[in-house]
Amino acid sequence: MENRICNLFRIKYPVIQGGMVWCSGWRLASAVSNEGGLGLLGAGSMHPEVLREHIIKCKAATKNPFGVNVPLLYPQIEEIMKIIVDEGVKIVFTSAGNPKTWTNYLHERGVVVAHVVSSSIFAKKAEDAGVDAIVAEGFEAGGHNGREETTTLCLIPAVREAVSLPLIAAGGICGKPGYNAAFALGADGVQIGTRFALCSESSAHENFKNRCRGLKEGETKLLLKKLAPTRLVDNDFSADVQSAEARGESAEYLKELLGKGRAKRGIFEGDLSQGELEIGQAASMVKREESVADIFRDLFNS
Amino acid sequence: MENRICNLFRIKYPVIQGGMVWCSGWRLASAVSNEGGLGLLGAGSMHPEVLREHIIKCKAATKNPFGVNVPLLYPQIEEIMKIIVDEGVKIVFTSAGNPKTWTNYLHERGVVVAHVVSSSIFAKKAEDAGVDAIVAEGFEAGGHNGREETTTLCLIPAVREAVSLPLIAAGGICGKPGYNAAFALGADGVQIGTRFALCSESSAHENFKNRCRGLKEGETKLLLKKLAPTRLVDNDFSADVQSAEARGESAEYLKELLGKGRAKRGIFEGDLSQGELEIGQAASMVKREESVADIFRDLFNS
Repeated sequence: MENRICNLFRIKYPVIQGGMVWCSGWRLASAVSNEGGLGLLGAGSMHPEVLREHIIKCKAATKNPFGVNVPLLYPQIEEIMKIIVDEGVKIVFTSAGNPKTWTNYLHERGVVVAHVVSSSIFAKKAEDAGVDAIVAEGFEAGGHNGREETTTLCLIPAVREAVSLPLIAAGGICGKPGYNAAFALGADGVQIGTRFALCSESSAHENFKNRCRGLKEGETKLLLKKLAPTRLVDNDFSADVQSAEARGESAEYLKELLGKGRAKRGIFEGDLSQGELEIGQAASMVKREESVADIFRDLFNS
Repeated sequence: MENRICNLFRIKYPVIQGGMVWCSGWRLASAVSNEGGLGLLGAGSMHPEVLREHIIKCKAATKNPFGVNVPLLYPQIEEIMKIIVDEGVKIVFTSAGNPKTWTNYLHERGVVVAHVVSSSIFAKKAEDAGVDAIVAEGFEAGGHNGREETTTLCLIPAVREAVSLPLIAAGGICGKPGYNAAFALGADGVQIGTRFALCSESSAHENFKNRCRGLKEGETKLLLKKLAPTRLVDNDFSADVQSAEARGESAEYLKELLGKGRAKRGIFEGDLSQGELEIGQAASMVKREESVADIFRDLFNS
């Protein structure tokens, strides 16, 4: 069957592994690409030279296409883009910023560009900026999230109407039911984050994975809306954030409370009390430890 | 094709029209039932004798099955239930309360009972209470909403796993893409609220309908979480609520700010500035004025 996402990225299955801070290094990305999906390195949590190292290891671990996810607000963005091009990566997913800034630069260097949005207005802007594909991510997604709070079920048909580009649905997609629903809604492919963040090849700490697998419904919450809305797992830190927010504390107060490096502390170092535990609502559907191969087997009986 | 929801309610299409305050009187419910869906009278905004009048008019306007939606926290609930039984209504949808309290009473009188939930834990409790079907309603739905904030895309597969009862997906379903997605997620039928609230036969004020049709994404917000989470359209009143919440005002303050009768003022009387405008995220997909017949034609080419 012809699929625009498979054709665009030259992959077997229209499944993108979301680029996620502290989870998606070369082990996860290469495993996904080896199974016939598209693995993405998450540059958001990597110093430039660390990213280079992951790209080199990923090239050694798979002959299939893989990409890099780059938050456009990254401080050393120019260095990051130069490394991506130098190392011959041919696919970049951009997010959190203006797609106009880097799309031409990447296109001129033979890189395919997808851009992540949370509304059909931004999808249209990304199309106008010349990107090759759109990722539309709904409210149920983990980590940083759109201000509109539009859910994947409402977002995908709206974006489908707004743009004609290949469209990847993200947020809340975990197993076969969500995969099939995404296509019913008009998507050409899916991006799966949470399930891959919790699998064996993810570089997240075991504490984090164990806490997140089989979360109860309602155990993640979209918090920090006065800064940047972020979906977090209930823990001591998130309880402090919630009570500060209920008291009406300012953005400055929340910024101080958040401090630096909490996502690393939670996801990578496994501090379940004081770390920032970023995961999507779909975590409640992840019931056990599994490998990337298990996930593809579940999705495609492959 | 055999469908459990069609069989249970003896209807042609597995489409329930959500029972909605100030929108779903006899005109809307009978029109939906006449098209082969299941119309529901929304008892939540009716005095008991007004409900009786609507039931009598609905019986005169359709020979097909219809039902009543009853919020179980309704103050005169015993009178409401007696009227439903006296007038021979054979289908009741209960919400916002414990399904144990009334299910046996209704069953003994030959009434089929569906119960609305926002989590798989409450779905299991409703199954244990003996209800005949479950409505699982996600975060994107209008008006009163679950505390878990689980979206329809995540909720339906979870409820499908938790219970074996006939399952109706609600929240964010508007057109054919959402309808098909609901079945892909494991539902046996859909409940559509927003789209019917905004159609010609809805008793909502024209001001309300015009404001809500074609809302921009993000123009509804889930507010009043310190009282009961409610999805509201942006207006002067909701801006006051938002700024009170940002300041950290108490539940008592919010209760006073809300006052009495704001939903009527907004939805039924058309006060777009100070009324409570309850509608779902799907409103942004409703582009024009349409009748119930138009909606069924769009869904089923009927």
